[in-house]
Amino acid sequence: MKVQGVIDRILLDCCGGRKLEQTCDVFASGNEDMEVTGIVTTFMATVDVIREAIAIGANLIITHEPTYYTGMDTLDWLQKDPVYLAKKKLIEEHGIAIWRFHDHMHLADTDRIYDGLLKELEWEDKKLDGKDSWGYQIEETTVGALAGFLKQRLGMEVIQIVGNPEAACARIGILVGGGSLGLGREQMPMELMQEKDLDVMICGDITEWTLCAYVNDASMLGMNKAMIVIGHERSEEWGMKYMAEWLKPLVGGLPVTFVDAKEPFIYL
Amino acid sequence: MKVQGVIDRILLDCCGGRKLEQTCDVFASGNEDMEVTGIVTTFMATVDVIREAIAIGANLIITHEPTYYTGMDTLDWLQKDPVYLAKKKLIEEHGIAIWRFHDHMHLADTDRIYDGLLKELEWEDKKLDGKDSWGYQIEETTVGALAGFLKQRLGMEVIQIVGNPEAACARIGILVGGGSLGLGREQMPMELMQEKDLDVMICGDITEWTLCAYVNDASMLGMNKAMIVIGHERSEEWGMKYMAEWLKPLVGGLPVTFVDAKEPFIYL
Repeated sequence: MKVQGVIDRILLDCCGGRKLEQTCDVFASGNEDMEVTGIVTTFMATVDVIREAIAIGANLIITHEPTYYTGMDTLDWLQKDPVYLAKKKLIEEHGIAIWRFHDHMHLADTDRIYDGLLKELEWEDKKLDGKDSWGYQIEETTVGALAGFLKQRLGMEVIQIVGNPEAACARIGILVGGGSLGLGREQMPMELMQEKDLDVMICGDITEWTLCAYVNDASMLGMNKAMIVIGHERSEEWGMKYMAEWLKPLVGGLPVTFVDAKEPFIYL
Repeated sequence: MKVQGVIDRILLDCCGGRKLEQTCDVFASGNEDMEVTGIVTTFMATVDVIREAIAIGANLIITHEPTYYTGMDTLDWLQKDPVYLAKKKLIEEHGIAIWRFHDHMHLADTDRIYDGLLKELEWEDKKLDGKDSWGYQIEETTVGALAGFLKQRLGMEVIQIVGNPEAACARIGILVGGGSLGLGREQMPMELMQEKDLDVMICGDITEWTLCAYVNDASMLGMNKAMIVIGHERSEEWGMKYMAEWLKPLVGGLPVTFVDAKEPFIYL
C-alpha cells in the first residue's frame, strides 16, 4: 500500500473523507507515492522516535505535532541550523515519510485525541454531556488524589498543580495540548470552568497569567477551584497510542506500532 | 503625593519620561488623583498580595502582570464571574489603586525585570555583550548543578529541565516571562540559541513544540543543549523586588514594600 492509500483510509474512517482546505496535516518529509513498509504513530517525531521507526523497519511516521519546532513546520529559518540538518539527514538517509495528523484527528466525530486519553483514564462513560470532551463527572475525590491517579495512569513522576491539594472535586474539565491556551481566546478556559461549574481543569500547555492566575485567586478566595498541569505531550500522546489500535484493521496487514515520544521534562 | 506623581517619577527614572501611546501600563482599579498612603510592588496583584497591601496600609499596588486573567485585562467577559466580583469587591472596599508597570519597565535603558533577576543571581557582570540581557557566560558547571543553583537562589522546590542534567554548560541564555514564547516569532528562542551558541536556555512560559522539542532533539543527537524552565512568575518577580529599592528614594518618604506574589505551582 502507498502512503496516499493509508492517508485516504484514515481520513475516511475519521471524517468520512472530509478534507480541510487549510490544514497543518501535511508531509514533513517524503510523499504520497512511497510504498509503506510499516507505520509508526506517535505524538511527535522526535529523533528517538525516528530511530525506533528505523529499528523496526517502518518508513511512515504519523505524528500529531510538528517535526521542526514551529506550528506550521516552516523551514526558511532552519537552513543552516545544525539540529535541523542532522535530523533531516537521519530522516532522508532512511527514507522515512513523516505525515502530520492533527486537524483531522481533532475534527473526528468524537475527537480521537480525547478518545485515547479517556481510554487510558477509563473515563469514557464520565462525560457531563454527550459528545462534548471538555467536562466530566467523576466520583468525589481530592485534587491531590486526582493528581496521583493521573501520575499513575499517565506515567508521570511529578505533576504541577495550582490550588489546594486537599480540596474536594468531582466535576473535572480537560483541555488537552494547546487547547488549554484557549484556542485563540485567552478567556475560554475560565469561561468554561464557570459555565460547567468545574472544580478542576486538567491542562496541557499553559501560560501563567490566564487560568493559572484565575484558579490561584479563586483558591485564595476560598472557592473550590484547582488546576492540574499534565503538559502537551502527556495529554495528547494517548490519542496516538489508541490510533495504532484503530488503524491496524484499516491497512491490510501492514504493521502499525505506537512509539511513545515520552514526556520531554525531567523534574529536578 | 498623588498616584500620578508616583507614576511620573517612575517613568522619568526608567525611560526619561518617554511614554508609549499603546501600552498595557494602565489602571486595573483606582486612578491618578488618589492620594498615596503606601506602595506595594509585585509580580501580580493576586488576592493574597492585595490582602497584604491592605494589612500594611498601602493603597497603591504596582503590578507587572494583569490583574484579571487576560493580557489586556478586558472585563466584558467577567461581568458575572464570581472570582472577578469577589476580587473587585476586596479591591474597592479598601480603596486600592492597581497600576500595571510592564511595557515601560522592559523598555528601560537596561530592562529592569532582567536587572532584578541578575541581582538575585549575582550575574550582573556575566553578560556576553553590553546591554543585551539574553546571553551570559558563567563558570563551567552542569545543567543539573545550574538548576540546583536556580532553585536555591529563586526559592523553588522543583525545577523542570529538558536535556541531560550531566551536560556541561557555560553559555547561558535567559528569556524571562512570556519572552520564551518568542515575542511573536515562534522560532526566536531557537535562533537565539544558535546565534549566541548557548548551551542552556532559562525560560519563563513555554510551549512544548518549540524550544522544548528543539532542545530535546538536540540532546538526542548528542549536541550540548538544554532548557531550564523556571516559569513566568519566578523569572520576573525579582524585577519587582528590585523596584522597591530604586523607587523608595524617588517618592519622598512614602513607604514602598515588595510583596512576593509567589510561585503559583505546587509540585506533587
